[in-house]
Amino acid sequence: MACNGAIQPLLSGSATSTTQKSNGDAPRIRRLRRVRSAPLAEYVPCGIKGNVSLPRSESIFGSLHPSFKKVAIFLTVYLGVGTICFYTVRNQIRGEKTNGILDAVYFCVVTMTTVGYGDLVPNSNLTKLLACAFVFTGMALIGLVLTKAADYLVEKQETLLVKALHMHQKVGQLEILKEIENNRIKYKFYMALILLIVLILTGTIFLSKVENLDLIDAFYCVCSTITTLGYGDKSFSTEGGRIFAVFWILAGTICLAQFFLYIAEVNTEKRQRALVKWVLCRRMTNVDLEAADLDDDGVVGAAEFVLFKLKEMGKICQDDILLIMEEFEELDVDQSGTLSASDINLAQSVETRRS
Amino acid sequence: MACNGAIQPLLSGSATSTTQKSNGDAPRIRRLRRVRSAPLAEYVPCGIKGNVSLPRSESIFGSLHPSFKKVAIFLTVYLGVGTICFYTVRNQIRGEKTNGILDAVYFCVVTMTTVGYGDLVPNSNLTKLLACAFVFTGMALIGLVLTKAADYLVEKQETLLVKALHMHQKVGQLEILKEIENNRIKYKFYMALILLIVLILTGTIFLSKVENLDLIDAFYCVCSTITTLGYGDKSFSTEGGRIFAVFWILAGTICLAQFFLYIAEVNTEKRQRALVKWVLCRRMTNVDLEAADLDDDGVVGAAEFVLFKLKEMGKICQDDILLIMEEFEELDVDQSGTLSASDINLAQSVETRRS
Repeated sequence: MACNGAIQPLLSGSATSTTQKSNGDAPRIRRLRRVRSAPLAEYVPCGIKGNVSLPRSESIFGSLHPSFKKVAIFLTVYLGVGTICFYTVRNQIRGEKTNGILDAVYFCVVTMTTVGYGDLVPNSNLTKLLACAFVFTGMALIGLVLTKAADYLVEKQETLLVKALHMHQKVGQLEILKEIENNRIKYKFYMALILLIVLILTGTIFLSKVENLDLIDAFYCVCSTITTLGYGDKSFSTEGGRIFAVFWILAGTICLAQFFLYIAEVNTEKRQRALVKWVLCRRMTNVDLEAADLDDDGVVGAAEFVLFKLKEMGKICQDDILLIMEEFEELDVDQSGTLSASDINLAQSVETRRS
Repeated sequence: MACNGAIQPLLSGSATSTTQKSNGDAPRIRRLRRVRSAPLAEYVPCGIKGNVSLPRSESIFGSLHPSFKKVAIFLTVYLGVGTICFYTVRNQIRGEKTNGILDAVYFCVVTMTTVGYGDLVPNSNLTKLLACAFVFTGMALIGLVLTKAADYLVEKQETLLVKALHMHQKVGQLEILKEIENNRIKYKFYMALILLIVLILTGTIFLSKVENLDLIDAFYCVCSTITTLGYGDKSFSTEGGRIFAVFWILAGTICLAQFFLYIAEVNTEKRQRALVKWVLCRRMTNVDLEAADLDDDGVVGAAEFVLFKLKEMGKICQDDILLIMEEFEELDVDQSGTLSASDINLAQSVETRRS
């Protein structure tokens, strides 16, 4: 995550210069100091869609970043159990067979990704129900665990992409981090696109060389696989092909799903940015002023203004504010309408007395 | 959306009572008035995942709720073009055929949902490439348009579900709206689950009656279809079956996808709620106080406290605040550190003079 202390000044600097540029005024004296961050805020990445990851919460909920050890264990257990099951009932599966264990792994991957070629098909009630169980759990595994891991991997690779794009310019690490921070979803989209093209090319070449398909058929089989369509008229029938397929099918289907997800996110972000711009440019009226005046003192302070605009942007809602206001009133022991060191000392002494 | 003016008082009332209950103190005198809403805020639903829909923005971006007219047009155009294409090249598709046009629609649906049974398979380079094009556009259509429409439909049906669940109690419309608002995602999950069970039962019964499959085979075909696995050993081969399939496959695959999405959302919401609770219960320290003091006046006002806690919850980030602070300083024409009616009048007169 790039939203760390190191680049904070850079980001605020850019925000300042943008506003001044659009305004054309000479820089004015700052009456408000640059907002100091809450201890956490330094590490909270700016997720425009709201799905921020929160390192601070790790202590209470465990890591929100997919732990790759966990993902690997899930996948291994799933494929392991699947392989053992389908190897045991291999005589109740009909179709083109190669190596017993390899076929079981291959069948497991083709099922969990919902490609379902049909080149290997369950042939008894037991295997049919087994396949049903494995396709549902497989979908859940891919949806809840693997795509998150893939998203994290793509994020990690962003730096490489941005570095490559700016190779002719001399840019430092900080500029790259800033560039990524501002265009996070766009670069994720590009990374997924590049990865997808590589996977499509690899698959097509492999199928035409190893499975002896002509180029159109190979491309058709690739498309039919990564979209999980899997008509099954063309599939992996050789031993070498199936070894390749196990890894390539997993990578291809997840990459395409992720790619579609990024398209949706790019759209959401565009809309959000337009909304933010619109809210910021909208002129304040006297009615707005009154609505923004949280503590009813007749004027709108900086924090009140920020809250008002955040509500307008839809980033927070009235319920969020109400909930925290209750907490504020609890904390404001001396009932002064503000929190100060004396409130905290009072609260502590009350607690000490109680316990 | 239930977050309208009518239920606002109810919601704030519930927040109050919760805090007081957990505290056990006698209700204290309110020094801060109930937060007045920004004009927009009344209509902004409280999306805990941050993906709020913003009716106000309709004027600038068009409706964010999927317009069903639009969805219907998209789907009709897609299926129409698909049917014409595949009907034209019907001689280059091999497999079990029934009625020419019906087969084309059926093939189109089986392809766009990525079920891909393989009971009808493209048999020439042209049809293969056509199928590739249709599966990608079909995926995009389902991902970007149809699932959003399905989500909206589920949302609309929530009231019915909650009413049914509380049938034995005498509850008013307002209580139902409040109940839905507090458990939005949970009820969506239940709605999708009920719908899914109905679709699975319908499909199983239909396949066993019309396609003459035994019950296990029928259930296996249903699972293989809604998960888009589509091995293709069991599929719809009669004319009646394919008419049913066209509607049932679309509904089933979208419903299951939506169901998995709700599971993920329920998880996210649980985590978010735990985080909000943790942030609210955390004791403030003097360091926190200093960090929260936005305008550097030595004390933390209500709005500053709310901003600080929102940052801790990860709902907003430093960048959001910085951007709006810039705007605040622009607006604060008399440089008093607060906005008042005089600032607005000054700004207007400056603008009038300029133009």
